[in-house]
Amino acid sequence: MSAALYVGLDVGGTTMKAAVVDDTGTPLSKPVVMDTLPERGQEAGLETMCETIRRAASAAGKTLKDIAAIGVATPGLMDIKAGLILDPPNLKPWKNVPVRDHIKGVFKIPTIYQNDANAAAYGEFWVGAGQTAASMVLFTLGTGVGGGIVLGDYILEGEHSHGGELGHLRIESPRHGRRCGCGARGCLEAYGSATSVVARARDELAVWRGPSRLKEYYTANNDVLTAKLIFDLADGGDELARQIVDDTAYYLGLGACAAIATVDPEMIVFGGGMAKDEAFRAKIHEYVVRFGLPHPVRKVKVEFAKLGSDAGFIGAAGGARLALKKGG
Amino acid sequence: MSAALYVGLDVGGTTMKAAVVDDTGTPLSKPVVMDTLPERGQEAGLETMCETIRRAASAAGKTLKDIAAIGVATPGLMDIKAGLILDPPNLKPWKNVPVRDHIKGVFKIPTIYQNDANAAAYGEFWVGAGQTAASMVLFTLGTGVGGGIVLGDYILEGEHSHGGELGHLRIESPRHGRRCGCGARGCLEAYGSATSVVARARDELAVWRGPSRLKEYYTANNDVLTAKLIFDLADGGDELARQIVDDTAYYLGLGACAAIATVDPEMIVFGGGMAKDEAFRAKIHEYVVRFGLPHPVRKVKVEFAKLGSDAGFIGAAGGARLALKKGG
Repeated sequence: MSAALYVGLDVGGTTMKAAVVDDTGTPLSKPVVMDTLPERGQEAGLETMCETIRRAASAAGKTLKDIAAIGVATPGLMDIKAGLILDPPNLKPWKNVPVRDHIKGVFKIPTIYQNDANAAAYGEFWVGAGQTAASMVLFTLGTGVGGGIVLGDYILEGEHSHGGELGHLRIESPRHGRRCGCGARGCLEAYGSATSVVARARDELAVWRGPSRLKEYYTANNDVLTAKLIFDLADGGDELARQIVDDTAYYLGLGACAAIATVDPEMIVFGGGMAKDEAFRAKIHEYVVRFGLPHPVRKVKVEFAKLGSDAGFIGAAGGARLALKKGG
Repeated sequence: MSAALYVGLDVGGTTMKAAVVDDTGTPLSKPVVMDTLPERGQEAGLETMCETIRRAASAAGKTLKDIAAIGVATPGLMDIKAGLILDPPNLKPWKNVPVRDHIKGVFKIPTIYQNDANAAAYGEFWVGAGQTAASMVLFTLGTGVGGGIVLGDYILEGEHSHGGELGHLRIESPRHGRRCGCGARGCLEAYGSATSVVARARDELAVWRGPSRLKEYYTANNDVLTAKLIFDLADGGDELARQIVDDTAYYLGLGACAAIATVDPEMIVFGGGMAKDEAFRAKIHEYVVRFGLPHPVRKVKVEFAKLGSDAGFIGAAGGARLALKKGG
């Protein structure tokens, strides 16, 4: 008998991706990508998910009969135990979508449902940056700050499907910190996401009085700004850009300290474009050592995510594999 | 064959306690208590541990042959995997004490080693406040703020034996927050422990200009102050005392929010004298709902610890039982 194969499906607000992944975590093809088009409604969405899974099998030269289990990851809000997408802001107008049971019903294959950030964390843990680690925490820096916690064979999903919501660790006062998308103030996401870096930079630019190449660019480009530009100018020595990047490392360092005080992982992995910058990660690590618990911070590893945007579907497949293994 | 029995031993800086605990979590006797006397050195300490275990068996009318496993809990710093007490501040001058192997060698019985705060959390989870919960986080408010995290059958020990160090969650700025015993600033422990409540009250008293019964007591009693007095006067309506208690609930609420954003437990349990006050716990819960993630905070339960200072040895015994069960 050949080794087991799994389909991992990662559903996002814009696209969904799926591929067949083997028992060693290797995708058998490039992922199949289809538009999610949530505005077409959830029935259409469920059909697109099934079609993406079918095409993933074809792309790997397999049929669904070759698949041992399907792993599906979606963004929150969700009810993992019930297998439901509740009402995530980026999948409007979907509501209470029975993802797991629908897919399981269509294919008659064991189907395991996960949060997308947790799936990405498990992907990195299984075959990415955390492959050698016994436990790992992932921070993904994008439009938000995603998080996931893996402790050996345990993916920390949480009792209410909110485990590893590390973007909502608070690193400034809930009374006067920056406003987060969740409605509260002071969340890490309001400081450490790529989007927030730009927002903080705009605030700094409004009051910056010294010379600055960042300010020149900003004015010359009709106030268009990206996190990448800020990081590039910081590397080039611009003082204002450097200060913004340093503050970002400080905030992420505080988030990492909170993860250490709770789960004390062997490794903390940062994903997303900004985290590619090695000097930036070193800076985060410096703040962790400066402000975290002395004993574990001396030993914790800080790494860059390896799988990029493939982490989600690989981790979804890995989660399915893990559930089968645990189930016996 | 009768059901399995376990000895749980909880080693503290002042005393150590042990009792035989049965398979349902019921101690067969009151715990045997012996002085730790760390200043007599670690050889004497190890002998006292063994003697406490022997007396616990006798107190239960059993011999060591009746014991399936021994659970030992000690305060950090420690190396759980290696079974070593490293160099905890309250066990000076002990250093690198091979607790697990020594006890195992003396009694030839499987011996499981744990952090004392994690053991207390497991005790509450097994047969205390968290008995009905699938996952639980414990905050113990004493001279410090202890913490422990239990996720089903998983006691979160951490990669470097620092899992669940919830007293070192940061709830104020690391730059200008209150100084914590760990050396950093802004830790929950520097705000929410009974000791810190008194310290914060002294600071408030120094600048308070209005009338206050707390201030009268303080002055009349040569500046002697306890957390209990502050809580009692707050219940009696004293404005200054009420403000201090309310701030304490706010800080603990922020700590609980961080626990929710990482592990999203079904239940958060508070232990220690202060937490007995139901109105105080309700106040903490209010702050959790106000400042935490909307979805899980609506569902999380906030309870008072049930086992008091017995949680440690019961949880140590429970941890031993759990390890045997997992081991097969």
